Amino acid sequence: MNTRELEILLVEDDPGDAELTTRSLRKEGLANKILLARDGAEALEILFAAVATGTEVAKGGPHIVLLDLQLPRVSGHAVLKAIRGNDRTRCIPVIVLTSSDHERDLTECYQLGANSYVQKPVDLGKFQDAVKQLGQYWLKVNRTPQWTACASGSAG
Amino acid sequence: MNTRELEILLVEDDPGDAELTTRSLRKEGLANKILLARDGAEALEILFAAVATGTEVAKGGPHIVLLDLQLPRVSGHAVLKAIRGNDRTRCIPVIVLTSSDHERDLTECYQLGANSYVQKPVDLGKFQDAVKQLGQYWLKVNRTPQWTACASGSAG
Repeated sequence: MNTRELEILLVEDDPGDAELTTRSLRKEGLANKILLARDGAEALEILFAAVATGTEVAKGGPHIVLLDLQLPRVSGHAVLKAIRGNDRTRCIPVIVLTSSDHERDLTECYQLGANSYVQKPVDLGKFQDAVKQLGQYWLKVNRTPQWTACASGSAG
Repeated sequence: MNTRELEILLVEDDPGDAELTTRSLRKEGLANKILLARDGAEALEILFAAVATGTEVAKGGPHIVLLDLQLPRVSGHAVLKAIRGNDRTRCIPVIVLTSSDHERDLTECYQLGANSYVQKPVDLGKFQDAVKQLGQYWLKVNRTPQWTACASGSAG
């Protein structure tokens, strides 16, 4: 794996949760390059400015997006919808990581094309464990296509 | 968790891989109820007969579908397309578990709406490890909506 590649785009407005998530992933040696977007608008700027300008982000990743739902300016639902609505970003695995336990959020995220939905455990140790397992699965076990490959391919 | 619920629909034509996958999941205490479909047609019969008749399968699950690609009668791609094309089944997480290392399969599966793509490791121990991590992630960390909830909900 090219360590210069952007591996995770973390979209999280809570500084505590962002720090905990990043630290848990780094502690396990799971991700060298994590970019933090503090709201939905910043996430879209990072993704779609990259698409337009062909920057490093567009070339190398992200392999996955970790997406909180309740975000300032642009909600997580809207970010998810935008990612799935663009040919060049629609294959990026999006894992919703939220404190919401509402069935409606769960169902709506799957309807909008989320790959996975993880409810943040309240307990600190359990939160770290969940992030560890999430990171191991999505970065080591799962295979992700080049994020621009979907734009040129065609589904049968 | 209700242990009577169907947790995993495993769609796999290779008896060796089916046995190994089932045993790895059971060994970790990850799944009590696994149903095996030996080809794509059998998988569709199980899922859509259940939709039509409201059997236990339709009520309780499956929580996830583990889907091989190269299958007799109906391919894994076609099964995935059918699952995503039906309102009542389209939120079921589908994890492709295949020996294919073709970029085209990888991209096409994501385009068709696969939640995840895992390439079967050739090494026996690594295969068991991958299945263990997959099971832990999808049955313990990830949250899955009631598989019929998508039919009545509406995405914003």
